[in-house]
Amino acid sequence: MEIYRSELSQHFVDTFIQKMEFTENEFDYIVSFFKRQYVPRKYFYLKAGQISKQKAYINIGSMRTFTMDEKGREHILNFSFEDWWIADFESYHSGKIGTKYIQAVEDCELLCISKEALEKLETEIPKLKSLFEIKQKNMIYSTIDRLTEVKTLTAEERYLNLIKKHPYIFQRIPLQYIASYLDIEPPSLSRLRKRLSTK
Amino acid sequence: MEIYRSELSQHFVDTFIQKMEFTENEFDYIVSFFKRQYVPRKYFYLKAGQISKQKAYINIGSMRTFTMDEKGREHILNFSFEDWWIADFESYHSGKIGTKYIQAVEDCELLCISKEALEKLETEIPKLKSLFEIKQKNMIYSTIDRLTEVKTLTAEERYLNLIKKHPYIFQRIPLQYIASYLDIEPPSLSRLRKRLSTK
Repeated sequence: MEIYRSELSQHFVDTFIQKMEFTENEFDYIVSFFKRQYVPRKYFYLKAGQISKQKAYINIGSMRTFTMDEKGREHILNFSFEDWWIADFESYHSGKIGTKYIQAVEDCELLCISKEALEKLETEIPKLKSLFEIKQKNMIYSTIDRLTEVKTLTAEERYLNLIKKHPYIFQRIPLQYIASYLDIEPPSLSRLRKRLSTK
Repeated sequence: MEIYRSELSQHFVDTFIQKMEFTENEFDYIVSFFKRQYVPRKYFYLKAGQISKQKAYINIGSMRTFTMDEKGREHILNFSFEDWWIADFESYHSGKIGTKYIQAVEDCELLCISKEALEKLETEIPKLKSLFEIKQKNMIYSTIDRLTEVKTLTAEERYLNLIKKHPYIFQRIPLQYIASYLDIEPPSLSRLRKRLSTK
Protein backbone atom coordinates (compact mmCIF):
# COMPACT_ATOMS: atom_id res chain seq x y z
CA MET A 1 0.00 0.00 0.00
CA GLU A 2 1.24 3.48 -0.79
CA ILE A 3 2.24 5.61 2.16
CA TYR A 4 1.12 9.24 2.60
CA ARG A 5 3.40 11.62 4.46
CA SER A 6 0.59 12.53 6.90
CA GLU A 7 0.36 8.90 8.01
CA LEU A 8 3.99 8.68 9.11
CA SER A 9 4.82 9.05 12.78
CA GLN A 10 6.58 12.27 13.76
CA HIS A 11 9.48 10.18 15.09
CA PHE A 12 9.96 8.51 11.71
CA VAL A 13 10.00 11.87 9.90
CA ASP A 14 12.33 13.43 12.51
CA THR A 15 14.78 10.54 12.30
CA PHE A 16 15.30 11.18 8.61
CA ILE A 17 14.82 14.94 8.28
CA GLN A 18 16.19 16.33 11.55
CA LYS A 19 18.60 13.75 12.96
CA MET A 20 20.10 12.46 9.73
CA GLU A 21 19.52 15.67 7.73
CA PHE A 22 18.08 14.05 4.63
CA THR A 23 16.58 16.54 2.17
CA GLU A 24 12.82 16.50 1.59
CA ASN A 25 13.44 15.01 -1.86
CA GLU A 26 15.67 12.26 -0.51
CA PHE A 27 13.10 11.49 2.18
CA ASP A 28 10.18 11.29 -0.26
CA TYR A 29 12.27 9.07 -2.52
CA ILE A 30 13.18 6.73 0.38
CA VAL A 31 9.59 6.58 1.63
CA SER A 32 8.41 5.59 -1.87
CA PHE A 33 10.18 2.24 -1.35
CA PHE A 34 8.36 1.49 1.89
CA LYS A 35 5.17 -0.54 2.02
CA ARG A 36 2.59 -0.44 4.76
CA GLN A 37 1.67 -3.77 6.36
CA TYR A 38 -0.91 -4.51 9.05
CA VAL A 39 -0.44 -7.37 11.49
CA PRO A 40 -3.48 -7.89 13.74
CA ARG A 41 -3.02 -8.85 17.40
CA LYS A 42 -1.78 -12.44 17.91
CA TYR A 43 -0.87 -12.83 14.23
CA PHE A 44 2.71 -13.63 13.30
CA TYR A 45 4.95 -11.23 11.44
CA LEU A 46 7.59 -13.96 11.14
CA LYS A 47 7.95 -17.59 12.16
CA ALA A 48 10.97 -19.83 12.71
CA GLY A 49 11.76 -21.55 9.40
CA GLN A 50 11.02 -18.46 7.31
CA ILE A 51 13.58 -16.13 5.74
CA SER A 52 13.55 -12.52 6.96
CA LYS A 53 13.60 -10.54 3.72
CA GLN A 54 12.70 -7.04 4.90
CA LYS A 55 13.17 -4.59 7.74
CA ALA A 56 10.03 -3.28 9.38
CA TYR A 57 9.56 -0.06 11.32
CA ILE A 58 6.80 -0.23 13.95
CA ASN A 59 4.61 2.80 13.26
CA ILE A 60 1.91 1.68 15.71
CA GLY A 61 1.72 -1.33 18.04
CA SER A 62 3.93 -3.80 19.88
CA MET A 63 5.55 -7.15 19.09
CA ARG A 64 7.29 -9.91 20.96
CA THR A 65 10.25 -11.93 19.69
CA PHE A 66 10.59 -15.42 21.07
CA THR A 67 12.20 -18.80 20.51
CA MET A 68 10.63 -22.20 21.09
CA ASP A 69 12.48 -25.06 22.73
CA GLU A 70 12.14 -28.75 21.85
CA LYS A 71 9.28 -29.16 24.32
CA GLY A 72 7.32 -26.35 22.64
CA ARG A 73 7.89 -23.85 25.46
CA GLU A 74 8.24 -20.21 24.42
CA HIS A 75 11.10 -18.00 25.63
CA ILE A 76 10.67 -14.25 25.07
CA LEU A 77 13.87 -12.48 24.02
CA ASN A 78 12.43 -8.98 23.74
CA PHE A 79 9.44 -6.73 23.20
CA SER A 80 9.37 -4.06 20.48
CA PHE A 81 7.28 -0.91 20.48
CA GLU A 82 6.74 2.15 18.27
CA ASP A 83 9.88 3.45 16.52
CA TRP A 84 11.72 0.11 16.68
CA TRP A 85 12.97 -1.74 13.63
CA ILE A 86 12.28 -5.46 13.55
CA ALA A 87 13.66 -8.44 11.64
CA ASP A 88 15.29 -11.77 12.37
CA PHE A 89 18.63 -10.04 12.08
CA GLU A 90 20.78 -13.08 11.29
CA SER A 91 18.33 -14.46 8.73
CA TYR A 92 18.02 -11.02 7.07
CA HIS A 93 21.78 -10.72 6.60
CA SER A 94 22.66 -14.34 5.85
CA GLY A 95 19.62 -15.13 3.71
CA LYS A 96 19.23 -18.37 5.66
CA ILE A 97 16.03 -19.49 7.39
CA GLY A 98 15.44 -17.85 10.76
CA THR A 99 14.96 -19.31 14.22
CA LYS A 100 12.81 -16.59 15.82
CA TYR A 101 9.08 -16.00 16.11
CA ILE A 102 7.87 -12.40 15.91
CA GLN A 103 4.22 -11.98 16.90
CA ALA A 104 1.98 -8.93 17.25
CA VAL A 105 0.96 -8.37 20.87
CA GLU A 106 -1.28 -5.43 19.89
CA ASP A 107 -2.65 -4.56 16.43
CA CYS A 108 0.39 -3.37 14.49
CA GLU A 109 0.99 -1.03 11.58
CA LEU A 110 4.42 -1.55 10.05
CA LEU A 111 6.41 0.34 7.45
CA CYS A 112 8.41 -2.29 5.59
CA ILE A 113 11.31 -2.07 3.21
CA SER A 114 12.71 -5.04 1.32
CA LYS A 115 16.39 -5.98 1.61
CA GLU A 116 16.73 -5.48 -2.15
CA ALA A 117 15.30 -1.94 -2.07
CA LEU A 118 17.33 -0.98 0.99
CA GLU A 119 20.60 -2.18 -0.55
CA LYS A 120 19.83 -0.20 -3.73
CA LEU A 121 19.00 2.92 -1.69
CA GLU A 122 22.11 2.58 0.47
CA THR A 123 24.27 2.65 -2.65
CA GLU A 124 22.43 5.70 -3.99
CA ILE A 125 22.27 7.57 -0.67
CA PRO A 126 25.28 6.63 1.50
CA LYS A 127 23.84 8.56 4.44
CA LEU A 128 21.15 5.91 4.71
CA LYS A 129 23.88 3.37 5.38
CA SER A 130 25.05 5.48 8.31
CA LEU A 131 21.52 5.52 9.73
CA PHE A 132 21.34 1.75 9.78
CA GLU A 133 24.87 1.49 11.14
CA ILE A 134 23.74 3.58 14.11
CA LYS A 135 20.67 1.36 14.51
CA GLN A 136 22.95 -1.68 14.35
CA LYS A 137 25.19 -0.32 17.10
CA ASN A 138 22.16 0.42 19.27
CA MET A 139 21.02 -3.12 18.66
CA ILE A 140 24.35 -4.50 19.89
CA TYR A 141 24.15 -2.30 23.00
CA SER A 142 20.65 -3.43 23.84
CA THR A 143 21.41 -7.11 23.18
CA ILE A 144 24.55 -7.01 25.35
CA ASP A 145 22.55 -5.15 28.03
CA ARG A 146 19.82 -7.76 27.89
CA LEU A 147 22.35 -10.60 28.15
CA THR A 148 24.08 -8.84 31.06
CA GLU A 149 20.73 -8.35 32.76
CA VAL A 150 19.68 -11.98 32.32
CA LYS A 151 23.05 -13.19 33.65
CA THR A 152 23.57 -10.65 36.46
CA LEU A 153 20.32 -9.34 37.92
CA THR A 154 17.75 -10.89 40.23
CA ALA A 155 14.12 -11.20 39.09
CA GLU A 156 13.22 -8.13 41.15
CA GLU A 157 16.02 -6.06 39.60
CA ARG A 158 15.03 -7.21 36.09
CA TYR A 159 11.43 -6.19 36.87
CA LEU A 160 12.50 -2.73 38.08
CA ASN A 161 14.69 -2.27 35.00
CA LEU A 162 11.80 -3.16 32.73
CA ILE A 163 9.29 -0.73 34.24
CA LYS A 164 11.96 1.98 34.26
CA LYS A 165 12.49 1.46 30.52
CA HIS A 166 8.78 0.93 29.72
CA PRO A 167 6.60 2.49 32.44
CA TYR A 168 3.37 1.54 30.67
CA ILE A 169 4.30 -2.02 29.78
CA PHE A 170 1.67 -3.61 32.05
CA GLN A 171 -1.03 -1.61 30.23
CA ARG A 172 0.11 -3.00 26.87
CA ILE A 173 1.63 -6.44 27.33
CA PRO A 174 -0.17 -9.37 29.02
CA LEU A 175 1.27 -10.39 32.40
CA GLN A 176 2.19 -13.93 31.29
CA TYR A 177 4.43 -12.54 28.52
CA ILE A 178 6.16 -10.17 30.93
CA ALA A 179 6.69 -13.10 33.31
CA SER A 180 8.27 -15.14 30.49
CA TYR A 181 10.52 -12.21 29.59
CA LEU A 182 11.60 -11.91 33.23
CA ASP A 183 12.01 -15.69 33.61
CA ILE A 184 9.65 -15.97 36.53
CA GLU A 185 6.27 -17.65 36.99
CA PRO A 186 3.19 -15.41 36.51
CA PRO A 187 2.03 -15.83 40.16
CA SER A 188 5.51 -14.80 41.39
CA LEU A 189 5.34 -11.71 39.18
CA SER A 190 1.93 -10.80 40.61
CA ARG A 191 3.28 -11.16 44.17
CA LEU A 192 6.39 -9.13 43.26
CA ARG A 193 4.28 -6.29 41.82
CA LYS A 194 2.01 -6.27 44.87
CA ARG A 195 4.93 -6.25 47.27
CA LEU A 196 6.76 -3.42 45.47
CA SER A 197 3.62 -1.32 45.00
CA THR A 198 2.90 -1.31 48.74
CA LYS A 199 6.48 -0.33 49.64
CA MET B 1 56.13 -2.13 20.77
CA GLU B 2 56.71 -2.36 17.03
CA ILE B 3 55.23 -5.40 15.33
CA TYR B 4 57.16 -7.58 12.87
CA ARG B 5 55.24 -9.33 10.12
CA SER B 6 56.68 -12.73 11.18
CA GLU B 7 55.08 -12.33 14.60
CA LEU B 8 51.53 -11.98 13.27
CA SER B 9 49.25 -14.99 13.30
CA GLN B 10 48.47 -16.48 9.89
CA HIS B 11 44.77 -15.84 10.54
CA PHE B 12 45.41 -12.12 11.06
CA VAL B 13 47.39 -11.87 7.82
CA ASP B 14 44.82 -13.93 5.88
CA THR B 15 41.91 -11.80 7.14
CA PHE B 16 43.47 -8.70 5.60
CA ILE B 17 45.31 -10.06 2.56
CA GLN B 18 43.13 -12.94 1.37
CA LYS B 19 39.62 -12.33 2.69
CA MET B 20 39.49 -8.54 2.42
CA GLU B 21 42.02 -8.28 -0.44
CA PHE B 22 44.10 -5.48 1.02
CA THR B 23 47.34 -4.83 -0.89
CA GLU B 24 50.65 -5.60 0.83
CA ASN B 25 51.26 -1.86 1.13
CA GLU B 26 47.87 -1.19 2.68
CA PHE B 27 48.41 -4.06 5.10
CA ASP B 28 51.87 -2.87 6.19
CA TYR B 29 50.48 0.62 6.63
CA ILE B 30 47.57 -0.64 8.76
CA VAL B 31 49.83 -2.86 10.88
CA SER B 32 52.12 0.12 11.58
CA PHE B 33 49.28 1.58 13.69
CA PHE B 34 48.95 -1.52 15.87
CA LYS B 35 50.79 -1.92 19.16
CA ARG B 36 51.62 -5.15 20.86
CA GLN B 37 50.46 -5.54 24.46
CA TYR B 38 51.03 -8.42 26.87
CA VAL B 39 48.50 -9.24 29.58
CA PRO B 40 49.71 -11.98 31.96
CA ARG B 41 47.27 -14.58 33.27
CA LYS B 42 44.82 -13.20 35.86
CA TYR B 43 45.67 -9.58 35.00
CA PHE B 44 42.94 -7.27 33.77
CA TYR B 45 42.83 -5.88 30.27
CA LEU B 46 39.90 -3.67 31.28
CA LYS B 47 37.87 -2.99 34.42
CA ALA B 48 34.40 -1.57 34.99
CA GLY B 49 34.73 2.18 35.43
CA GLN B 50 37.39 2.53 32.73
CA ILE B 51 36.86 3.83 29.20
CA SER B 52 37.54 1.37 26.37
CA LYS B 53 39.72 3.40 23.99
CA GLN B 54 41.10 0.72 21.69
CA LYS B 55 40.20 -2.52 19.94
CA ALA B 56 42.43 -5.49 20.65
CA TYR B 57 42.98 -8.58 18.51
CA ILE B 58 43.92 -11.69 20.51
CA ASN B 59 47.06 -13.03 18.83
CA ILE B 60 47.71 -15.59 21.58
CA GLY B 61 45.72 -16.47 24.70
CA SER B 62 42.21 -16.35 26.13
CA MET B 63 40.14 -13.82 28.06
CA ARG B 64 36.88 -13.76 29.96
CA THR B 65 34.40 -10.87 30.01
CA PHE B 66 32.27 -10.60 33.11
CA THR B 67 30.07 -8.25 35.11
CA MET B 68 29.91 -7.94 38.86
CA ASP B 69 26.63 -7.60 40.74
CA GLU B 70 26.07 -5.51 43.89
CA LYS B 71 27.06 -8.43 46.10
CA GLY B 72 30.41 -8.75 44.30
CA ARG B 73 29.48 -11.95 42.48
CA GLU B 74 30.94 -12.38 38.99
CA HIS B 75 28.82 -13.32 35.97
CA ILE B 76 30.71 -14.46 32.87
CA LEU B 77 29.22 -13.18 29.61
CA ASN B 78 31.72 -14.80 27.25
CA PHE B 79 35.16 -16.19 26.66
CA SER B 80 37.43 -14.93 23.87
CA PHE B 81 40.21 -16.87 22.17
CA GLU B 82 42.74 -16.35 19.38
CA ASP B 83 41.46 -14.31 16.40
CA TRP B 84 38.76 -12.52 18.42
CA TRP B 85 38.55 -8.76 18.76
CA ILE B 86 37.88 -7.48 22.27
CA ALA B 87 36.64 -4.20 23.76
CA ASP B 88 33.82 -2.98 25.97
CA PHE B 89 31.86 -2.26 22.84
CA GLU B 90 29.44 0.31 24.25
CA SER B 91 32.16 2.22 26.08
CA TYR B 92 34.38 2.18 22.97
CA HIS B 93 31.67 3.76 20.81
CA SER B 94 30.07 6.11 23.34
CA GLY B 95 33.29 7.23 25.03
CA LYS B 96 31.56 6.69 28.39
CA ILE B 97 32.94 4.55 31.21
CA GLY B 98 32.37 0.83 30.76
CA THR B 99 30.63 -1.75 32.94
CA LYS B 100 32.55 -4.89 31.96
CA TYR B 101 35.65 -6.60 33.32
CA ILE B 102 37.95 -8.27 30.77
CA GLN B 103 40.58 -10.50 32.37
CA ALA B 104 43.28 -12.75 30.92
CA VAL B 105 42.58 -16.42 31.66
CA GLU B 106 45.87 -17.47 30.03
CA ASP B 107 48.91 -15.30 29.25
CA CYS B 108 47.78 -13.08 26.38
CA GLU B 109 49.47 -11.31 23.51
CA LEU B 110 47.25 -8.64 21.99
CA LEU B 111 47.51 -6.48 18.89
CA CYS B 112 45.87 -3.19 19.81
CA ILE B 113 44.73 -0.25 17.75
CA SER B 114 43.46 3.01 19.23
CA LYS B 115 40.03 4.35 18.34
CA GLU B 116 41.72 7.49 17.00
CA ALA B 117 44.05 5.56 14.68
CA LEU B 118 41.27 3.25 13.50
CA GLU B 119 38.96 6.14 12.64
CA LYS B 120 41.76 7.83 10.69
CA LEU B 121 42.53 4.59 8.83
CA GLU B 122 38.86 3.92 8.05
CA THR B 123 38.64 7.29 6.33
CA GLU B 124 41.80 6.63 4.34
CA ILE B 125 40.99 3.00 3.48
CA PRO B 126 37.20 2.51 3.29
CA LYS B 127 37.61 -1.25 2.91
CA LEU B 128 38.76 -1.34 6.53
CA LYS B 129 35.36 -0.02 7.54
CA SER B 130 33.74 -2.98 5.74
CA LEU B 131 35.96 -5.38 7.69
CA PHE B 132 34.76 -4.01 11.02
CA GLU B 133 31.17 -3.88 9.81
CA ILE B 134 31.40 -7.64 9.15
CA LYS B 135 32.94 -8.15 12.61
CA GLN B 136 30.12 -6.07 14.07
CA LYS B 137 27.46 -8.18 12.40
CA ASN B 138 29.15 -11.36 13.63
CA MET B 139 29.15 -9.84 17.10
CA ILE B 140 25.40 -9.24 16.93
CA TYR B 141 24.82 -12.83 15.77
CA SER B 142 26.88 -14.29 18.58
CA THR B 143 25.33 -12.04 21.23
CA ILE B 144 21.78 -12.86 20.09
CA ASP B 145 22.76 -16.56 19.98
CA ARG B 146 24.15 -16.34 23.49
CA LEU B 147 21.01 -14.60 24.77
CA THR B 148 18.82 -17.19 23.04
CA GLU B 149 20.89 -19.98 24.56
CA VAL B 150 20.72 -18.53 28.07
CA LYS B 151 16.94 -18.07 27.78
CA THR B 152 16.06 -21.27 25.92
CA LEU B 153 18.44 -24.14 26.63
CA THR B 154 18.92 -26.38 29.65
CA ALA B 155 22.29 -26.50 31.42
CA GLU B 156 23.09 -29.79 29.66
CA GLU B 157 22.27 -28.32 26.22
CA ARG B 158 24.35 -25.20 26.98
CA TYR B 159 27.23 -27.47 28.00
CA LEU B 160 26.99 -29.51 24.79
CA ASN B 161 26.84 -26.32 22.71
CA LEU B 162 29.95 -24.99 24.40
CA ILE B 163 32.10 -28.08 23.84
CA LYS B 164 30.87 -28.26 20.26
CA LYS B 165 32.03 -24.67 19.67
CA HIS B 166 35.23 -25.02 21.75
CA PRO B 167 36.25 -28.69 22.01
CA TYR B 168 39.39 -27.87 24.00
CA ILE B 169 37.84 -25.41 26.42
CA PHE B 170 38.35 -27.63 29.49
CA GLN B 171 42.07 -27.76 28.70
CA ARG B 172 42.28 -23.95 28.68
CA ILE B 173 39.63 -22.49 30.98
CA PRO B 174 39.29 -23.41 34.69
CA LEU B 175 36.18 -25.41 35.55
CA GLN B 176 34.74 -22.76 37.91
CA TYR B 177 34.71 -20.18 35.07
CA ILE B 178 32.98 -22.59 32.71
CA ALA B 179 30.42 -23.31 35.44
CA SER B 180 29.78 -19.55 35.87
CA TYR B 181 29.38 -19.18 32.10
CA LEU B 182 26.88 -22.06 32.05
CA ASP B 183 25.07 -20.76 35.16
CA ILE B 184 25.50 -23.96 37.14
CA GLU B 185 27.46 -24.82 40.28
CA PRO B 186 30.96 -26.31 39.75
CA PRO B 187 30.02 -29.67 41.40
CA SER B 188 26.98 -29.96 39.10
CA LEU B 189 29.20 -29.33 36.09
CA SER B 190 31.60 -32.06 37.24
CA ARG B 191 28.70 -34.50 37.63
CA LEU B 192 27.30 -33.50 34.23
CA ARG B 193 30.68 -34.07 32.53
CA LYS B 194 31.07 -37.45 34.22
CA ARG B 195 27.56 -38.54 33.29
CA LEU B 196 27.90 -37.50 29.63
CA SER B 197 31.41 -38.98 29.23
CA THR B 198 30.22 -42.43 30.34
CA LYS B 199 27.20 -42.38 27.96
